[in-house]
Amino acid sequence: MKITENERDAVYKTIFARRDVRGEFSPEPIPEDVLHRVLTAAHHAPSVGFMQPWDFVLVDDLETKKKIKTGFDSANRESAEQFNDDKAAQYRKLKLEGILEAPLGICVTCDRHRNGPTVLGRTIKAEMDLFSSVCAVQNLWLAARAENLGVGWVSILHDSVLRDALNIPEEIEIIAYLCVGYVSYFKDKPELETLGWQPRRDVNSAIHYGTWSRAVDTGA
Amino acid sequence: MKITENERDAVYKTIFARRDVRGEFSPEPIPEDVLHRVLTAAHHAPSVGFMQPWDFVLVDDLETKKKIKTGFDSANRESAEQFNDDKAAQYRKLKLEGILEAPLGICVTCDRHRNGPTVLGRTIKAEMDLFSSVCAVQNLWLAARAENLGVGWVSILHDSVLRDALNIPEEIEIIAYLCVGYVSYFKDKPELETLGWQPRRDVNSAIHYGTWSRAVDTGA
Repeated sequence: MKITENERDAVYKTIFARRDVRGEFSPEPIPEDVLHRVLTAAHHAPSVGFMQPWDFVLVDDLETKKKIKTGFDSANRESAEQFNDDKAAQYRKLKLEGILEAPLGICVTCDRHRNGPTVLGRTIKAEMDLFSSVCAVQNLWLAARAENLGVGWVSILHDSVLRDALNIPEEIEIIAYLCVGYVSYFKDKPELETLGWQPRRDVNSAIHYGTWSRAVDTGA
Repeated sequence: MKITENERDAVYKTIFARRDVRGEFSPEPIPEDVLHRVLTAAHHAPSVGFMQPWDFVLVDDLETKKKIKTGFDSANRESAEQFNDDKAAQYRKLKLEGILEAPLGICVTCDRHRNGPTVLGRTIKAEMDLFSSVCAVQNLWLAARAENLGVGWVSILHDSVLRDALNIPEEIEIIAYLCVGYVSYFKDKPELETLGWQPRRDVNSAIHYGTWSRAVDTGA
């Protein structure tokens, strides 16, 4: 099946307009058909040995969100202490999640035991199943953006908080907790770039010919 | 920036038409501007703390590809022995890579030391930087598909083979080796599904409401 130039440009537009959303969520609920399309796109991610190890736990209950938010607040205080003075002060001012504001949370998990112990393509590189679930996250994120839905990945969260709140057993790996919802607007650039936390690398510094080499340029 | 319905549909078309390509590569070289667009899309993946930990090593030298192919052949024999008799026989018949046929190999790496030891968003979940590099792989894969380029992820390969062939130091993590090129055609469905290796899960079995639960349906 051929992708036309217009279709290609739409894919690029979506990739470049995707943002990690923390502060601009609106409470408007996500229609069921829209959500189903987004999850179906996630489910069509590549997976090692066609293992499809992912699951998606949908969180719309306020009490559950409050538990997760409390877990974030604690992990975030713990994290701020890891930065030195200047960065710590800047860090504490950042809004890094929209757990309560987003109408929906989606926890993406990975069942490493699915389809038995021997999985085609995972025989040598054991983490391939985790990576498959991350590909599902990225498909979900781009499909959501194509639906004009914002997504924010909350990684400042101990797994134990999500296990407790969502009843996730120890043998299931937690990959991501995503906040999802419509937004008032999408920022033009990543917030951490705009605020001067970290510059965008020149793409050419990430491209190496023939052999790996230490990048000359690691910032703008 | 609003994504229109036509643009949304182009994104879905690309997501559903993406395949893991092993056997249909044509030797036609990839124009430089096309490759640059694809790598720029990969570089606009989300990354923890805007860390951008990825690098892309381009492999077009035949001798280097032969080293990698030899490494695959050895890892593949080792892998076949892990399956029981019936599956092992079926496994040995599968074509699982296009290392020599694809005009380009791309090794995606992750520099976990980039931007110092403390990275925003990686303070609690240490593997977030690896996951960022996987998001870059998935952006690359979808951008390639939008350019009508096939991609195959070769995971049956010891890291040591790629370290030797591409001069990748021990402190740099290897995420993926991708074969990239134009193709004679894209299969309608994943090959492992068509061949009966593994069925497609019903997407509804992957969706859970409120709490995680053991999926009822893990196959069609």
